[in-house]
Parts: sequence; structure tokens; C-alpha cells
Amino acid sequence: MQRITITPSQVHDNQIALTTEQHHYLTHVIRLRTDDEFEAIDGTGACYLAAITATGAQVIRIAIAISPEFFQPIVLICALPKGNNFDDLVRACTELGVTTIIPAISDRTLLNPSPQKLQRWRKIAQEAAEQSERLVVPTIEEPQALKTIFGGLIDPAAKYLCEARGEHPHLLTILQSTEATDLPIIIAIGPEGGWTDGEIELAIEHDFQLVSLGARILRTITAPIVALSIVCAAIDSARNID
Amino acid sequence: MQRITITPSQVHDNQIALTTEQHHYLTHVIRLRTDDEFEAIDGTGACYLAAITATGAQVIRIAIAISPEFFQPIVLICALPKGNNFDDLVRACTELGVTTIIPAISDRTLLNPSPQKLQRWRKIAQEAAEQSERLVVPTIEEPQALKTIFGGLIDPAAKYLCEARGEHPHLLTILQSTEATDLPIIIAIGPEGGWTDGEIELAIEHDFQLVSLGARILRTITAPIVALSIVCAAIDSARNID
Repeated sequence: MQRITITPSQVHDNQIALTTEQHHYLTHVIRLRTDDEFEAIDGTGACYLAAITATGAQVIRIAIAISPEFFQPIVLICALPKGNNFDDLVRACTELGVTTIIPAISDRTLLNPSPQKLQRWRKIAQEAAEQSERLVVPTIEEPQALKTIFGGLIDPAAKYLCEARGEHPHLLTILQSTEATDLPIIIAIGPEGGWTDGEIELAIEHDFQLVSLGARILRTITAPIVALSIVCAAIDSARNID
Repeated sequence: MQRITITPSQVHDNQIALTTEQHHYLTHVIRLRTDDEFEAIDGTGACYLAAITATGAQVIRIAIAISPEFFQPIVLICALPKGNNFDDLVRACTELGVTTIIPAISDRTLLNPSPQKLQRWRKIAQEAAEQSERLVVPTIEEPQALKTIFGGLIDPAAKYLCEARGEHPHLLTILQSTEATDLPIIIAIGPEGGWTDGEIELAIEHDFQLVSLGARILRTITAPIVALSIVCAAIDSARNID
């Protein structure tokens, strides 16, 4: 079924006040006719089954879907890679189940992307959430310096800093040797060239545990997808066993 | 250090017979001068430290690197996705440590890529292997029908067919509940729209175990990277613990 993303404030008294663009999209692009049904997710976890009307939509019921969402927030702090690869990263991490992506300006990446880029990433996150039938649209925060990011994180949380080929225990080993909790999981992935010593010290001060993603060299664009694959598999697999 | 890929037959009596392109690349693109050193991997596991000469290269010694390779072959059977995304998939899976990629022509993908495409994927695998400092260049086989692929697989092997959101046990759960062996691991990932019932039956006949990659919907381009991340993490993590 066709699915669009709305904001919670668009729903009043079982009516969805669609924007002109949303109504146009549903009636002219998707070609729904009056009374045809679609799903509207409000990006915070609610999913409505609705029928299109002449100007908006009528809520039929709150759709009860098996939630693909994790119990706990999963936050990715990711040094901005060179080039335009961040688009792909946002898309894949949204599919995987990330809750928040925080682009980091690190010592070895001085990129400060334009506000247009940020808007673009948010749009990609929304589209990817719709396509992968998630109920939550990940938040893409503004790029910030690592120190600012570390200072503003939710607490308590389980925090992991991935370092390429360091002599650290493997992320999966650590996740599975830690008693399962519903604490937010925060993963930080460095830039090309890796984190500087100062950044690693800063992370340790902020209670990050240093972990490895294995013996192979991953690009900045691949590493976050690998890390999130491991986090999601560890959570899913622990639930499987329970 | 600069690294290039050669074939085993290029090495004789401690001399490397570089091709004209390789010599040109090292002396004109990378701008090495006579006696400057570089590394040559032969794609099958050997890594040579060599010095450039006027027309070729002299082996200084066999470089002993900590091998980033897994003990067992890791084979990915992947239904060809629409579009040109297979490039990205080959690149990421090479970084992750795949040994062989077999593009599959499935009931729901009728694409039969040109020989140029295959050459392109092989070149990408070689470049990605060099960049990620692997010792083995993954083999990219010719696209084949699923039945032909299943009939020609190495045996014995641990074989897993990933099905989107099926009620199957999670790949990680299965990998970790199976006693660790050095058997080849074969992972099959379906096309957009998933495997047909006939393909699933065929896989079961060929001793594939059906597994899930979690509750979320992954694109055909993301799923193989997620599956390989899980396989590699399970192997690495098991070694960590030993």
C-alpha cells in the first residue's frame, strides 16, 4: 500500500490535513481516487490507514503493523566523508533502523556542508523510511564539532567508538558480552585517515568504549553500514533467542 | 605504500614482468623512480615488496603482512539488482572480505548484463582489493541462472538463503548456534520482490538453510552488505573469544 509521511500536527478529529503537495502526489502522481486507501505515518511511531477525500484524507483506523523499530534509540555519529557519498549512507542506515544521524566535523574533515545538503539528507531519510516501511523517520542533525556532539548526547547510553584495525575487541563481542539493556546505543565512525589521538581521548572521557569492526580496511562510507548491521543483528538475534 | 595487483605468472626468478600499463602507472601516474619501492599482490595470497627498474621490478622480499583474509571462502550469490548499483555492491563486499561473487539471474530479474559490465565489476573488485589492502582479489563469476549456480557450488559448505522478513531464524543466531568450522560459507540474496516459491524450494533441495536479516525491509543493494557484515563479524568475534 502507498505510504506517505505526515507530521503529528496534521491529524485532527480523524481528519488528515494533507498539504497541497501531498494531496497532489496522491491524486496525480499515484493517481488515487476519492475513497482510495493509503497509509500515513507521522514519523514518531503512529501509522494511519486513511482514505483520500477531495481536499484531504479521512482516518479509517490506526493501522497496527508489526513494528520494525527497535526498543532503544540507535544513534550514529559519523565523520563526514569526502564526496557525495553521505546520501547513500543516510539511505542505507535508515533502512537498517537508525534513529538519529549526527554528521560530525572532525579534525581530519573540515567539510561544512551547505544547508541545502542537510535538507537533502532529511528528504532522503524520509523517502527511505517510507520505502522500507519504517514508522520512525530518522532525525538528521546539523553537522557539529565532535566536542559539541559528545557534550550533548543522551545519558545514560552505551557508547562505542569504532577504530579501524585497532587492537580493540570486536563490536559484536562487546555487544554480546554486555547484558542486554534498552539503553540507547551510540556508534561513532571516524573519517578517512581515522580519528586523531585527541579525538580518541575525548571519546574516552565521554565514556566511549573503543571497538573494532574487524581486520579489514573499510571506507568511511562502508563502515557505518557494517557497524549498524552488527548492532541490529545483535539486538534481533538476542530477541530471537529469548 | 603503493600497491598493485599482478598475476602469479608475472613473477620469475625474483623479477616481476610488469605490463606496459602497470609500469606506466607506477612511473608516470604514481611517479615512482628507479629503486622506489611498492607492493605487488598476486591475488592468490602472496604479497611482494618490490623495487621499480627501467622496464619491470625486482622482488626485494615476500612481504609478510598480517592477513586480513578469512580462513574459509565466503561466497555471495546475489540476484542482479536493477540499475547500476552492482558496482557499489562489488566494492563494499570486496572490502568486507568476500571471496567469490556470483551474479544470479533469478525468476524476478531478467537482466543479462553485457560482457563489458562483467569486466567492469572485475576491475572494481581488483581496485577495491588494492585499496583495502586485501591479499585476495575476489572472483566475479559470469551471471548464471540460479539452478546452474546451485548445481556448481563447492561442497560441503554452509549455505544460507536470506529471505526478507520471513519467519526464519536470524542469520547471526544460526551462525553462532552452529559449531564453528572452516567450511565455505555461501550466502544467497534475492532480487527486488524476493525469491519465488520455486527458487526457495530449489534452494532447500540444495541444502540451503532459510534465514532472516531482521524485521526491516532492505533494498537488494543493502542486503548483501548487511549479510556479509554479519558473517564477517560472527567469524571475527568467534576468533576474538578463542
